[in-house]
Amino acid sequence: MATAPSAKLTPLLKDELDIVIPTIQNLDFLEMWKPFFEQYHLIIVQDGDPSKKIRVPNGFDYQLYNKNDVNRILGPKASCISFKDSACRCFGYLVSKKNYIFTIDDDCFVAKDPSGKEINALEQHIKNLLTPSTTHFFNTLYDPYREGADFVRGYPFSLREGVPTAVSHGLWLNIPDYDAPTQLVKPLERNTRYVDAVMTVPKGTLFPMCGMNLAFDRELIRPAMYFGLIGDGQPIGRYDDMWAGWCMKVKCDHLGLGVKTGLPYIWHSKASNPFVNLKKEYKGIFWQEKAIPFFQSVSLPKEGSSVEKCYLALAGEVKSKLGEVDPYFIKLADAMVTWIEAWNMVNSPGEKPAMTSLPNATSKK
Amino acid sequence: MATAPSAKLTPLLKDELDIVIPTIQNLDFLEMWKPFFEQYHLIIVQDGDPSKKIRVPNGFDYQLYNKNDVNRILGPKASCISFKDSACRCFGYLVSKKNYIFTIDDDCFVAKDPSGKEINALEQHIKNLLTPSTTHFFNTLYDPYREGADFVRGYPFSLREGVPTAVSHGLWLNIPDYDAPTQLVKPLERNTRYVDAVMTVPKGTLFPMCGMNLAFDRELIRPAMYFGLIGDGQPIGRYDDMWAGWCMKVKCDHLGLGVKTGLPYIWHSKASNPFVNLKKEYKGIFWQEKAIPFFQSVSLPKEGSSVEKCYLALAGEVKSKLGEVDPYFIKLADAMVTWIEAWNMVNSPGEKPAMTSLPNATSKK
Repeated sequence: MATAPSAKLTPLLKDELDIVIPTIQNLDFLEMWKPFFEQYHLIIVQDGDPSKKIRVPNGFDYQLYNKNDVNRILGPKASCISFKDSACRCFGYLVSKKNYIFTIDDDCFVAKDPSGKEINALEQHIKNLLTPSTTHFFNTLYDPYREGADFVRGYPFSLREGVPTAVSHGLWLNIPDYDAPTQLVKPLERNTRYVDAVMTVPKGTLFPMCGMNLAFDRELIRPAMYFGLIGDGQPIGRYDDMWAGWCMKVKCDHLGLGVKTGLPYIWHSKASNPFVNLKKEYKGIFWQEKAIPFFQSVSLPKEGSSVEKCYLALAGEVKSKLGEVDPYFIKLADAMVTWIEAWNMVNSPGEKPAMTSLPNATSKK
Repeated sequence: MATAPSAKLTPLLKDELDIVIPTIQNLDFLEMWKPFFEQYHLIIVQDGDPSKKIRVPNGFDYQLYNKNDVNRILGPKASCISFKDSACRCFGYLVSKKNYIFTIDDDCFVAKDPSGKEINALEQHIKNLLTPSTTHFFNTLYDPYREGADFVRGYPFSLREGVPTAVSHGLWLNIPDYDAPTQLVKPLERNTRYVDAVMTVPKGTLFPMCGMNLAFDRELIRPAMYFGLIGDGQPIGRYDDMWAGWCMKVKCDHLGLGVKTGLPYIWHSKASNPFVNLKKEYKGIFWQEKAIPFFQSVSLPKEGSSVEKCYLALAGEVKSKLGEVDPYFIKLADAMVTWIEAWNMVNSPGEKPAMTSLPNATSKK
């Protein structure tokens, strides 16, 4: 017997958050998430063959976009959206009309905490986003805004307001997010350690952002969560989320926004093929040795501190500095500019695009 | 019946580590630590009235220094050692002849992990110190050198060697290390969250170092763990470990050394009096608002990268920059210089002081 909708508790940010899911397969994984996701709107970005029909379990409110929809909506600017490597998820960020985004991969299931209780990952992400970050000084008892914790002795009082949190990066039990070399060396390693912590990645520190279990404040981040030209037809794969993370972190540091990592965990069910991954990653393994020092030292203009202007300035730096490493980065920098144009086209300042402006996506309510 | 010594396992670094304990009372708390400490050498620094006899439980190998010993050994340079606020513990670091130090307060007991097992805090500190730190890039699965963990996808391979770990900062279950205002506001708050993580405090990030449960590599840190002129006769208390931590972190960042925080936990038994603490802390609450920006921006000379030279350069900066905040910092800067002189006197380069050079400290084997 179905519970009457009126009996359900309204979850946090119900009408202010979209769940973005990139996929090439039927979304049976959603069955397990139903108690946590069913009251939210889903944006599904179909990767691969657009003629293939993706099955979505009953009971979800969603909109599904395939490659044809992307081409139709963005026209020539659709060139900035990559396929076959999860990078297409950022199209979902672009067409969302909400203030918050949660994105999750379709091989991620509900994890359990050490007491055996199912973890409501989305609720934890929302808590992370709705409390400040501590970017300027490290708190040894982790997130001081969590219940049962606070700032420790010696934490400057002037910094206890924190800064707005823009990103919440969640982790994974079972299959850890390892690169191909580590997968090859440790094929049996599983992450079984539940670390009951949320923490701020300090200002000036870069981290590897995984796109598998990620939430952000779309009003603060705006277009600064672009997953790049990575995947089908490009010389590298599996660096889409990393690229987005480095660009995002540099910009959050510049704009005084916070990034948290830690809880919530999801259960990552299966390891991808390490041989395939190695092929996708291997140029990235070299290039990131140049990209990291670049991001660690890049400086953005103080004037014009809008996210869009900063992002365009960053694209210019990528072109001039990393373009010397490989011509690929020139193409990537151009795509970053196209992405901003596409963003501005769909998200005109002061005007939120009406649902009717995106007429032909598959919609289900 | 006593176990024959030959049947005991030799603990890690048995002959290379001293346990330093500052105290004003009988050391009954050591009974609980006996299984973990009994094979190590203890350096007890008696605070308060030197004529008072401190009782040490049987079965420990220790040396006890009181204020008279400090005066005798350091002569006029004894002025750099403060009493009545735990700062005197750094005298133990100075007279130690070992490569590693673990320091613990006498109100800290053995904690239990979530499975109910007693935590060997010292063993965890040693593991932290004997594995590298990841100062240049954040690893989202925490310490990659722990069993069951590794570097995640996107972590640059060139940075996976890490840097030598100089400091391991442990945490506290039960009574958290709060300042007086937080103690007053949350008198009943207890830390019950066991976070199963060790992590590096990234380069460029300061943190509040608590001296209650702390270990370090004395060969790497050398005199850079000075607890300052804080306590009896000084305008502030309860900032001795904070001061040491800020100076230490700036120097470790400068010299490419790592600092870890997290595990191990100890059980902190009793909260100190918040009214007394407020009196001790209140100037520090103002001054740290100036001190933190100072430490965040201070630059140390590239040439002469020995710990001693860096420390003296830092003392010079403290005098010129923080001296403007309050004349107290001029006195503190002078004491930092005296501390280096005292250190060099007892730890002559190339010569380790023989036990016989410190003849009259109370010794027990």
